[in-house]
Amino acid sequence: MQRTSYRDMECPVARSLEEVGEWWSILIMRDALLGLRRFDEFQQSLGVAPTTLTRRLNALVDNGLLTKRRYSERPPRDEYLLTDKGRDFQSVVLALLTWGSKHLSGPEGPSLQVVDRHSGTPVTPTLMDAGTLQPLTTRNTSLIAGPGAGPEIHNRIDQVTRRREAKERTR
Amino acid sequence: MQRTSYRDMECPVARSLEEVGEWWSILIMRDALLGLRRFDEFQQSLGVAPTTLTRRLNALVDNGLLTKRRYSERPPRDEYLLTDKGRDFQSVVLALLTWGSKHLSGPEGPSLQVVDRHSGTPVTPTLMDAGTLQPLTTRNTSLIAGPGAGPEIHNRIDQVTRRREAKERTR
Repeated sequence: MQRTSYRDMECPVARSLEEVGEWWSILIMRDALLGLRRFDEFQQSLGVAPTTLTRRLNALVDNGLLTKRRYSERPPRDEYLLTDKGRDFQSVVLALLTWGSKHLSGPEGPSLQVVDRHSGTPVTPTLMDAGTLQPLTTRNTSLIAGPGAGPEIHNRIDQVTRRREAKERTR
Repeated sequence: MQRTSYRDMECPVARSLEEVGEWWSILIMRDALLGLRRFDEFQQSLGVAPTTLTRRLNALVDNGLLTKRRYSERPPRDEYLLTDKGRDFQSVVLALLTWGSKHLSGPEGPSLQVVDRHSGTPVTPTLMDAGTLQPLTTRNTSLIAGPGAGPEIHNRIDQVTRRREAKERTR
């Protein structure tokens, strides 16, 4: 499928999607965050074609989310370790997991649970403001143009402002 | 591109990816969360082909993230409003935005900023445990099988356990 490259877009959401590439990459990151490291482990977990897996692993290494380390010389074998940038991606995977667990679970409940590593107590992943410790919702947050905003972002923010003004007028 | 349907997978991350469908759907959700509602607004913001936009909007309505409301009879025009399920998706969009802003911004800084709607103060979106108010990291969390876990999840968790045991042995 042909498509625009999101990399050209200014928006950090679009750039993140371009950087991570496609669904398989997110599932590879999920497995890496879960603790898998080796090609065979990813393959067994994902059931993906080896060529696809190689391509996606290489892209994640090129983009700096994973790093490759040789663990055997004969036969030559590499394992894939998370970088700090890759570890930071956990918030995206946990946000998807939390949303999916809440809205897409069967009647028996969620299939995965996030727990505190030491105590084993279930945790409730919630997006909060680190400053005020308030949960972030659509009602208490807005997005504004940042210092790196160019015409694309400014246009979009202007659109939202026009929409909000139109809404005020119809009240 | 042919691919496995992630809907058949048990994992809530995979199911979420299937439900949201593709990159365009996430960018539509970003714009809806930003405050856009109308076809023309989404089209102008995304620069996507109308047929693609129609298909993705309909899929988001079918999956219950957006709801359609007629705002004009002549000509017939609908707007797309967020449901509670759609509003909950904000945590995924903000997680992508935060990761992208940190790791993919240019030298001039991030192009978008999340602020408190009322005070305008910048907020720092952080994934935390709502119970303990501790930030969640790869070092203090684990994933375990939940009540809805079937063979797929159990196999993957077993794999991780084997990997961890192998690591202990080489220490």
